[in-house]
Amino acid sequence: MLYPVIMSGGSGQRLWPASRPHFPKPFIPLVGSRSTFDEALERSKALSNAAPVTVVAGRSHAPAIRRALQRAGGEGLLVMEPEARDSAPAMAAAAHLIAARDPEGVILFLAADHHIPDQHAFAQAVGLAERHARDGWIVTLGVQPDAPSTAYGYIRPGEPQGGIHHVAAFVEKPDLAQAEQFLRDGYLWNSGMFITRADTFIAELDLYAPEISTAARLSVEEGEHEPHQVSLSAAFRSAPKISIDYAVMEKTDRALVAPAHFAWSDLGAWNAVLAASKRDESGNSAAGEVVLENAEGCLVRAGEGMTVVVVGGRNLAVIADREAVMVCDLDSSEGLKAAVERASKMGVAAPRPLAING
Amino acid sequence: MLYPVIMSGGSGQRLWPASRPHFPKPFIPLVGSRSTFDEALERSKALSNAAPVTVVAGRSHAPAIRRALQRAGGEGLLVMEPEARDSAPAMAAAAHLIAARDPEGVILFLAADHHIPDQHAFAQAVGLAERHARDGWIVTLGVQPDAPSTAYGYIRPGEPQGGIHHVAAFVEKPDLAQAEQFLRDGYLWNSGMFITRADTFIAELDLYAPEISTAARLSVEEGEHEPHQVSLSAAFRSAPKISIDYAVMEKTDRALVAPAHFAWSDLGAWNAVLAASKRDESGNSAAGEVVLENAEGCLVRAGEGMTVVVVGGRNLAVIADREAVMVCDLDSSEGLKAAVERASKMGVAAPRPLAING
Repeated sequence: MLYPVIMSGGSGQRLWPASRPHFPKPFIPLVGSRSTFDEALERSKALSNAAPVTVVAGRSHAPAIRRALQRAGGEGLLVMEPEARDSAPAMAAAAHLIAARDPEGVILFLAADHHIPDQHAFAQAVGLAERHARDGWIVTLGVQPDAPSTAYGYIRPGEPQGGIHHVAAFVEKPDLAQAEQFLRDGYLWNSGMFITRADTFIAELDLYAPEISTAARLSVEEGEHEPHQVSLSAAFRSAPKISIDYAVMEKTDRALVAPAHFAWSDLGAWNAVLAASKRDESGNSAAGEVVLENAEGCLVRAGEGMTVVVVGGRNLAVIADREAVMVCDLDSSEGLKAAVERASKMGVAAPRPLAING
Repeated sequence: MLYPVIMSGGSGQRLWPASRPHFPKPFIPLVGSRSTFDEALERSKALSNAAPVTVVAGRSHAPAIRRALQRAGGEGLLVMEPEARDSAPAMAAAAHLIAARDPEGVILFLAADHHIPDQHAFAQAVGLAERHARDGWIVTLGVQPDAPSTAYGYIRPGEPQGGIHHVAAFVEKPDLAQAEQFLRDGYLWNSGMFITRADTFIAELDLYAPEISTAARLSVEEGEHEPHQVSLSAAFRSAPKISIDYAVMEKTDRALVAPAHFAWSDLGAWNAVLAASKRDESGNSAAGEVVLENAEGCLVRAGEGMTVVVVGGRNLAVIADREAVMVCDLDSSEGLKAAVERASKMGVAAPRPLAING
């Protein structure tokens, strides 16, 4: 049995105003008509041997997740963190939950905010990784880069192992020159997707991050268990706040990387959203009531009841709803975070969702 | 006595979405906190020998005009056209109304959508023109250009006449090369402001545009007269639809041009609004709840209850309210009209005013 676990976290300031604290990035239809959370659900269900999905998330994401699970047929388990402690504690809690039922079950850890249009290629990569996971490896998917992105971390593949590779190193986000070198050297993007047997994962956690493993196990044992929901206990708060890369993956000798040959994006900023979107012949992507006149390379989103007109714009994101409008040069999107922090102080970032049509 | 007449017309598509059919350009605070109509009222009242103002406008402007007159103290006469017939019939009707009381009274025709910050210089230019008007001339104010604008018509000054000049020619909006030549040749901007005795003006109308004069006179005589309002009769509709330049000024030998040495703008498009606005050290002008991050030369207007964030924009207008957002490269504003026509077909251009704070 394969147990898909969707990790949902983060506030997505770099996608403001579409993404706001109470209606964050995974639940907004950023590319096409579906949210990345809905995509992740469907991606999980479409795997041939998949158990119902487990979702690990903070309480603020819970209402959106319940609605999404309901829409998808009502199956699935929502595991609520009492507070966000980065990826390692969340994955540890999910692993302990699953191990209690099926220690040799294989877990597929997915992120709620990834866009992967090709389900078939995804399933193939998972299948390859799963075979190695059954042999006791922790396999991460390394996406074949199609550009020298500075927005992603990289994985340097090491010695071959049964058709895939050991992980030689996890590498932080590079600058452009480094990224270009990484491409030439065959590095892969660190997707943050992992496939591992529950017992393998817990064994490595116990070895390299025992505090996390213990806190996560306790938070499950003491948690409040309902049919479709688990509230992790306060013990979860005592887990060190750390990513799985730092806590385990950089230390373990059980790490393999399986190459993934599919288009993939974490839609980390508006330029990534445009890159993943369908464009017209002028390179524009528009959704909602939008009029473009002599615009090129623009991403335009009009919320419900709004009309957005763009005249002569080049390489802009224009995201509008009834409370907030964001206009950003797509090459300057790194400035958005600072701007949003200033806007928040003006009392914006309201909990009203952006409804965009398509 | 000097009789100020404010002409209010036009739909202002080039200033959409701030300007919309039921809340047009003259009644919006585009520069600073006051509308150009309020500015024109104040400009008129500040003249030392001015009678209460007469406003000629279409019915759709009437509510906004009544509110503005009320705010300014309640004086003034609103003359309503049954339909828009361009400037010549509107000016003719005002002239017949005023001539009925004071044939030798001097009329100062002003536009409702002009921005002239320097009241003192304005009053000086009017005073100079008025002296010539009393001698039976129709004097137009020719604004000294400060740039080779292609947005305005020009006046070529002719022979001197008592310290000012005859009009040698009215010239249509030029291209840039022509405009630069006009500047070198001492041409003036055709401001559309005129000073003339009522009887002079009617005599020239009778000579060169008798149909207009007759239709206008009838529309006044048959009109519905109330204390603060005149509804011109249907006779007005039979006047040829034509501007005063074509109907009279290009033909009469009574035309003089008085040079006007003050900053002047008809705020004809968003780049003109930015040029007339106070700017910060990065060349931006912002009003309402606006956050700018690394923006340069941008005009940003946030309607009530909206926040607008602009990141890394250059030379953009961003005008936003709860129903419509317009983003325009300020060098491409000629494309806005076409875009607005397309937006109108989508049911936009709603009658809701844009409230902007400052």
